[in-house]
Amino acid sequence: LRQGYPEVIYCEGKSIEHIKGIVKKMLERNSNILATRANKEVYEALKDTTEDIEYNEMARIIMIRKNEIKKSKSKILVVTGGTSDIPVAEEAAITAEFLGNTVEKLYDVGVAGIHRLLSHRKNLDEANVIIVVAGMEGALASVVGGLVDKPVIAVPTSVGYGANFNGLAALLAMLNSCASGVSVVNINNGFGAGYFASTIIKQIDKIK
Amino acid sequence: LRQGYPEVIYCEGKSIEHIKGIVKKMLERNSNILATRANKEVYEALKDTTEDIEYNEMARIIMIRKNEIKKSKSKILVVTGGTSDIPVAEEAAITAEFLGNTVEKLYDVGVAGIHRLLSHRKNLDEANVIIVVAGMEGALASVVGGLVDKPVIAVPTSVGYGANFNGLAALLAMLNSCASGVSVVNINNGFGAGYFASTIIKQIDKIK
Amino acid sequence: LRQGYPEVIYCEGKSIEHIKGIVKKMLERNSNILATRANKEVYEALKDTTEDIEYNEMARIIMIRKNEIKKSKSKILVVTGGTSDIPVAEEAAITAEFLGNTVEKLYDVGVAGIHRLLSHRKNLDEANVIIVVAGMEGALASVVGGLVDKPVIAVPTSVGYGANFNGLAALLAMLNSCASGVSVVNINNGFGAGYFASTIIKQIDKIK
Amino acid sequence: LRQGYPEVIYCEGKSIEHIKGIVKKMLERNSNILATRANKEVYEALKDTTEDIEYNEMARIIMIRKNEIKKSKSKILVVTGGTSDIPVAEEAAITAEFLGNTVEKLYDVGVAGIHRLLSHRKNLDEANVIIVVAGMEGALASVVGGLVDKPVIAVPTSVGYGANFNGLAALLAMLNSCASGVSVVNINNGFGAGYFASTIIKQIDKIK
Amino acid sequence: LRQGYPEVIYCEGKSIEHIKGIVKKMLERNSNILATRANKEVYEALKDTTEDIEYNEMARIIMIRKNEIKKSKSKILVVTGGTSDIPVAEEAAITAEFLGNTVEKLYDVGVAGIHRLLSHRKNLDEANVIIVVAGMEGALASVVGGLVDKPVIAVPTSVGYGANFNGLAALLAMLNSCASGVSVVNINNGFGAGYFASTIIKQIDKIK
Amino acid sequence: LRQGYPEVIYCEGKSIEHIKGIVKKMLERNSNILATRANKEVYEALKDTTEDIEYNEMARIIMIRKNEIKKSKSKILVVTGGTSDIPVAEEAAITAEFLGNTVEKLYDVGVAGIHRLLSHRKNLDEANVIIVVAGMEGALASVVGGLVDKPVIAVPTSVGYGANFNGLAALLAMLNSCASGVSVVNINNGFGAGYFASTIIKQIDKIK
Amino acid sequence: LRQGYPEVIYCEGKSIEHIKGIVKKMLERNSNILATRANKEVYEALKDTTEDIEYNEMARIIMIRKNEIKKSKSKILVVTGGTSDIPVAEEAAITAEFLGNTVEKLYDVGVAGIHRLLSHRKNLDEANVIIVVAGMEGALASVVGGLVDKPVIAVPTSVGYGANFNGLAALLAMLNSCASGVSVVNINNGFGAGYFASTIIKQIDKIK
Amino acid sequence: LRQGYPEVIYCEGKSIEHIKGIVKKMLERNSNILATRANKEVYEALKDTTEDIEYNEMARIIMIRKNEIKKSKSKILVVTGGTSDIPVAEEAAITAEFLGNTVEKLYDVGVAGIHRLLSHRKNLDEANVIIVVAGMEGALASVVGGLVDKPVIAVPTSVGYGANFNGLAALLAMLNSCASGVSVVNINNGFGAGYFASTIIKQIDKIK
Ligand SMILES: Nc1ncnc2c1ncn2[C@@H]1O[C@H](COP(=O)(O)O)[C@@H](O)[C@H]1O
Ligand SMILES: Nc1ncnc2c1ncn2[C@@H]1O[C@H](COP(=O)(O)O)[C@@H](O)[C@H]1O
Ligand SMILES: Nc1ncnc2c1ncn2[C@@H]1O[C@H](COP(=O)(O)O)[C@@H](O)[C@H]1O
Ligand SMILES: Nc1ncnc2c1ncn2[C@@H]1O[C@H](COP(=O)(O)O)[C@@H](O)[C@H]1O
Ligand SMILES: [Mg+2]
Ligand SMILES: [Mg+2]
Ligand SMILES: [Mg+2]
Ligand SMILES: [Mg+2]
Ligand SMILES: [Mg+2]
Ligand SMILES: [Mg+2]
Ligand SMILES: [Mg+2]
Ligand SMILES: [Mg+2]
Repeated sequence: LRQGYPEVIYCEGKSIEHIKGIVKKMLERNSNILATRANKEVYEALKDTTEDIEYNEMARIIMIRKNEIKKSKSKILVVTGGTSDIPVAEEAAITAEFLGNTVEKLYDVGVAGIHRLLSHRKNLDEANVIIVVAGMEGALASVVGGLVDKPVIAVPTSVGYGANFNGLAALLAMLNSCASGVSVVNINNGFGAGYFASTIIKQIDKIK
Repeated sequence: LRQGYPEVIYCEGKSIEHIKGIVKKMLERNSNILATRANKEVYEALKDTTEDIEYNEMARIIMIRKNEIKKSKSKILVVTGGTSDIPVAEEAAITAEFLGNTVEKLYDVGVAGIHRLLSHRKNLDEANVIIVVAGMEGALASVVGGLVDKPVIAVPTSVGYGANFNGLAALLAMLNSCASGVSVVNINNGFGAGYFASTIIKQIDKIK
Repeated sequence: LRQGYPEVIYCEGKSIEHIKGIVKKMLERNSNILATRANKEVYEALKDTTEDIEYNEMARIIMIRKNEIKKSKSKILVVTGGTSDIPVAEEAAITAEFLGNTVEKLYDVGVAGIHRLLSHRKNLDEANVIIVVAGMEGALASVVGGLVDKPVIAVPTSVGYGANFNGLAALLAMLNSCASGVSVVNINNGFGAGYFASTIIKQIDKIK
Repeated sequence: LRQGYPEVIYCEGKSIEHIKGIVKKMLERNSNILATRANKEVYEALKDTTEDIEYNEMARIIMIRKNEIKKSKSKILVVTGGTSDIPVAEEAAITAEFLGNTVEKLYDVGVAGIHRLLSHRKNLDEANVIIVVAGMEGALASVVGGLVDKPVIAVPTSVGYGANFNGLAALLAMLNSCASGVSVVNINNGFGAGYFASTIIKQIDKIK
Repeated sequence: LRQGYPEVIYCEGKSIEHIKGIVKKMLERNSNILATRANKEVYEALKDTTEDIEYNEMARIIMIRKNEIKKSKSKILVVTGGTSDIPVAEEAAITAEFLGNTVEKLYDVGVAGIHRLLSHRKNLDEANVIIVVAGMEGALASVVGGLVDKPVIAVPTSVGYGANFNGLAALLAMLNSCASGVSVVNINNGFGAGYFASTIIKQIDKIK
Repeated sequence: LRQGYPEVIYCEGKSIEHIKGIVKKMLERNSNILATRANKEVYEALKDTTEDIEYNEMARIIMIRKNEIKKSKSKILVVTGGTSDIPVAEEAAITAEFLGNTVEKLYDVGVAGIHRLLSHRKNLDEANVIIVVAGMEGALASVVGGLVDKPVIAVPTSVGYGANFNGLAALLAMLNSCASGVSVVNINNGFGAGYFASTIIKQIDKIK
Repeated sequence: LRQGYPEVIYCEGKSIEHIKGIVKKMLERNSNILATRANKEVYEALKDTTEDIEYNEMARIIMIRKNEIKKSKSKILVVTGGTSDIPVAEEAAITAEFLGNTVEKLYDVGVAGIHRLLSHRKNLDEANVIIVVAGMEGALASVVGGLVDKPVIAVPTSVGYGANFNGLAALLAMLNSCASGVSVVNINNGFGAGYFASTIIKQIDKIK
Repeated sequence: LRQGYPEVIYCEGKSIEHIKGIVKKMLERNSNILATRANKEVYEALKDTTEDIEYNEMARIIMIRKNEIKKSKSKILVVTGGTSDIPVAEEAAITAEFLGNTVEKLYDVGVAGIHRLLSHRKNLDEANVIIVVAGMEGALASVVGGLVDKPVIAVPTSVGYGANFNGLAALLAMLNSCASGVSVVNINNGFGAGYFASTIIKQIDKIK
């Protein structure tokens, strides 16, 4: 179904033996593999299974490259509100890159200091798709969505406490954005945002 | 800011006098205008203000066309689960069309009769972006998302009762879709989906 | 207890007869009276009870002035995200004015068009206290809170639909603001914000 | 009351001493015993108490067979969306088997790849009762429910994260299924589904 | 797909014109038709469309019988806690009868007077399937589930107020039943319970 | 304020040093002391501070008796649905006893086997106040409340999982009881129930 | 079962014909009848059915006295926070009186003006049971509970708006009261509080 | 932006390396630094980085003083309901002090013993701003708010259990306070309250 694209494993809650089995079967098909939510033990257990394996600890992603991945020139920009949102942002960025995209990053430009964001206007203008990763009140998605007229994918994170309810505050805020052109994925779902952005780039590139 | 694009008014909760005032100011700027969530009384009050005004009752949208809108050849497909979801789907379709897009529709293909959806495989394959509108358990977004590898914008509707909690069930389902490439807008937010789809098409067309 | 200050009646859910009784007793004490959430019928029923009575329909407030109210020179600024938030903002403004404050207003400067807000920097700088009234995702409170270093009182409104849950989205956003110096009152509680701002001004003026 | 049927212990939150005491009393009555949510330590503590004891680690179930259990020929089919749902599915399957039923399994046929499910049409057609175990958005229950006209028992699992709210998303989806003939048990309640399916089979077999 | 069975229309939120259109198309196929959540106006609009049409006002169901429906001898018992639950119970009973089942009723036997229920032990014993309809705290499902070893389908109703949250209290109670053999449908979903019960009876009758 | 009654410490979340300090100050006043939610380490740290100290591990209560406690002859009956509810029931029972009451217990008489409860009718009839402790769906409170015409204090417990939401299911059920004469305390609040029951007994005994 | 006590009808959601039928059957048994949540139309329809019928509009209660009700000398005190809580308080008071109790009232003594409550210390001291009716934040229950050592029955009301969530705020507050000796009934359940208080008084009087 | 004020780091969820890096960059700017939610390990890792560093373990705050902080004479009073609320209160107090304020404390004056609070009337009267920190039902904010006519900042804490829902009960109560002049910050957000109070004091002092 998803030819050209890697096969994806969601590791959370799976035993290492289970993951190993899945990976081996995929390797027989010579697939590229992206394993998300993988902690270091999973990587340790897999790293001798194959060459071409790489681990990004912050993003908690394992990448296995069996086939060359053609790089698109269209641009995905990943933006975060704070520094605590970076792991989720990296999950998005790594996913998008592994799917063959050019990714740029603009971290820690949250709305509490709006001028930092505004001073990067050019980055916003040059991107084809923008992924906004923000926790707490998730306001950044609305501000970015108001500044540009291109697809903004909002990723609420669970950064925060109390009435944040593990990301619910940011999720609701993003779903209710007063700016047009914003859509939302699940709390902490960097993978989903990176993948969704990638489907947009594929449509752009197909046309060319 | 949003040049080329129409100005948009969200009518819900605004008095007719208030809306009239906003429209008049916009007309002075000779803008195209899209007024959503407009009931018939709003239209009655506005229809003599200007020519080029049109009302779609099912979508509850008023359109005022002051400038020609160039039509894109890229395709947006709007899909619904049931017939009760159609008003929201029409809000999405009318919005996207008014923004210059080619829109196709595939209504009442919910998962309770999955073969109806499967028999329209070609429609899914030809679209650049798919908007899935579904209430109750919102499962259609996941099934469509699993069939295609292109952007799927999911719109939960408030169709249902009881533990549906006015669309919460479909919203959560769509946010948790096991299919990749699905992003979500607010409950009943046909406008948002149509607009977001349109920002994607703009990126596609820009490249050409 | 609350000397100098008016007596306050919350009219919602009280019968007209009940309200009339309360007002009469207060008039015997020659108090200034502020009646909030009062619809037009309440005003009609009260307006012949006393002179010095005034009604603000948008704010749904009845004011009865029996004693002169000394005006403070300190400034309260009331800001709104959209035009639908204005009734709540007016409740705050009228309340603060009736309590003897100088109130300035800056309406419809929501984050979807952040430059409108930024172009009013001077208004923000001159105020002693800022009340931010916003619905939908409530992001405005964070942006304003980040721009100034003075008390920002955030009032979430129930403007919105779907996953807005009658103001819950804005409420949670405001409670989780990443900007320092923001505190929050109940959804649609313009009165509470106006009153709270007024207690701050009283402390400022007391010192002088 | 429940003659023929085993006695059942729910081990979660009970001390090993407590469980041991209960088991001993049941053994005096020579009952068959099913102990659910039993971790390995519980089994270790019980395994020398009696012969005919068996432990299924994935399902976390201990079975003690003191009396022969007559096997029904009617069929219960247990279906899962992903591989992470298998422990709950096994709880259902083991329970149903211990209660004397013939159980078939069809795992990892989630809606993100609907054709895998459709290719097993025959399994669906031959079953008398179908148990659908799915997490995330729980869409599988509706798809299966739409394909067959027989009792479908839906078991939401807590597989997922973020706006999944520990299984709430799947639970609500299943309760709102647009397909007829679907009923629901508690989140992760494999035991309940297996038991309920078994009461249906008993009615079928009674008639014969 | 659902041969022998009637076609079903869910009328809530559909316009009369819309419903009429659906019914006419179904009549061309000579189907039996069950229209649920139909108020009197819907019936008035339909009653001259065809003979063999009947309306049950309490259950809010319209029945159109174009083909004889063979009656099963297996028994479905519908039980309610209070008298306010009867409309939902009737929706279940009428649905089940229209699908060819023998339905017995035992109304107003709630747990506040447990002896009334216990005095009807024979009704419980003779049924093949029991539908329990209860609002408020929904305790009746657990009590019935504890008395019998056969399928109990629990229907929470929205009868109650305050912390009942429109049926949520009964829904949660039923999902957490300490009795085995209980499954649950949506709040007020009498139709779903009647239909589900009917799929069980079909399995029983098939075997014979 | 609370003369005759012991002083009470709620230990959860307090450091051992903190608790020790409080106890010492109370001992100077020669008070009887009841320390709830105390784990074994707390007891170990306190046990050499004073004689007359006793620990009940299941109830997690430390008792220090400095003054004789006069025993009432009125009866409090503590009832539980399952055996997992016993720690909460013991908290209630120990509290009530320490406050000078006669307490009787009837454990594991849940509604899944209603006849066990009915066979203890006499216990229910002889009590002046009944405390019902139940988790899962909390139905026992309604059944007991329907059998007697005396104060029934319902204590929801967090026993259960999934849609139990840590006791919310039982809490809502008990608040919505269809039986008259039931009031409710917080989830797992055995202490509160025991104390409340004791205030009733004091009123009874005062009269004599 | 409930001899001496009246029969009770909960009128909400019942048709007038239905209520009339119930009342007639009860009158044949010559019972005293209490009909709660009865609007004026219900009373109009019933008032010629029997003599000895009385209606309290504020409490929305119909009373039919067929047998003398013996009056207890023990005292129930009903306290409210505001004047908007009075209808619920009256439901409690009328219920308790109809059940043969002596009821005293202390209205509008909310915590925003704590001294009004403190000045009525004597009323609190003389009561055997206190019913506290309060909306908004429900703090009054804790303050009263801290002042007395006797049973305090807390009734949350739905008075309030926004984050009050129809009485949820007061309900949670009362369940979490830091004062001992407080138990809670459902939101707006004046009847339940009056009835529960009455069961306490019966135990007191029985002893004498 | 926030000149004169310290730079603030929120340490929760940040790695020690990450925090160290931030601190070093800030030290280059010679800023005063306040690091909140810092556990002891963070302090151990930082303490040799610079002189002028101090750690408050209860408040979990690290303070680095590079520049003299001018002390205001205006007063902030921090009040708590119980002793378990003290860590949050200390976070508020330390924050306010570090920002140059005079802070007074009044701990453990909860509403269950209202007279303790009333006996400190003078403390309330002398403060310019009052911070009320309370968990469980959060009633203290309303009582204090009713006693004074000055800004009251309410901080709900997560102290409690069961239907407390980690501070939700106190949060809702405080948002719904029946007393005027109360605003609210996030659950456990002592820092936010201290900072907000400080912005008020700055306005007061500016005027002088
Ligand atoms: N981090 C993630 N969050 C959400 N979904 C994911 C994530 N990683 C992978 N997935 C999805 O999970 C599927 C694989 O699930 P599984 O078969 O359980 O490993 C992929 O095809 C993706 O659609
Ligand atoms: N009262 C009801 N509650 C829930 N689902 C229903 C109800 N009545 C009909 N349905 C379902 O709704 C489907 C028809 O929906 P529709 O095509 O929108 O009329 C039927 O096939 C049933 O599965
Ligand atoms: N206002 C009320 N709130 C809660 N329960 C009530 C109320 N009035 C009556 N009830 C209960 O409802 C029962 C009668 O219900 P029903 O048979 O439906 O009329 C009575 O026995 C009471 O237990
Ligand atoms: N305990 C706290 N609770 C809430 N917000 C805080 C807290 N401590 C610091 N902050 C805010 O978090 C910001 C720093 O966040 P960060 O850049 O992630 O360290 C500060 O400017 C404050 O506004
Ligand atoms: Mg935009
Ligand atoms: Mg896809
Ligand atoms: Mg600020
Ligand atoms: Mg089906
Ligand atoms: Mg059973
Ligand atoms: Mg009773
Ligand atoms: Mg007390
Ligand atoms: Mg005040």
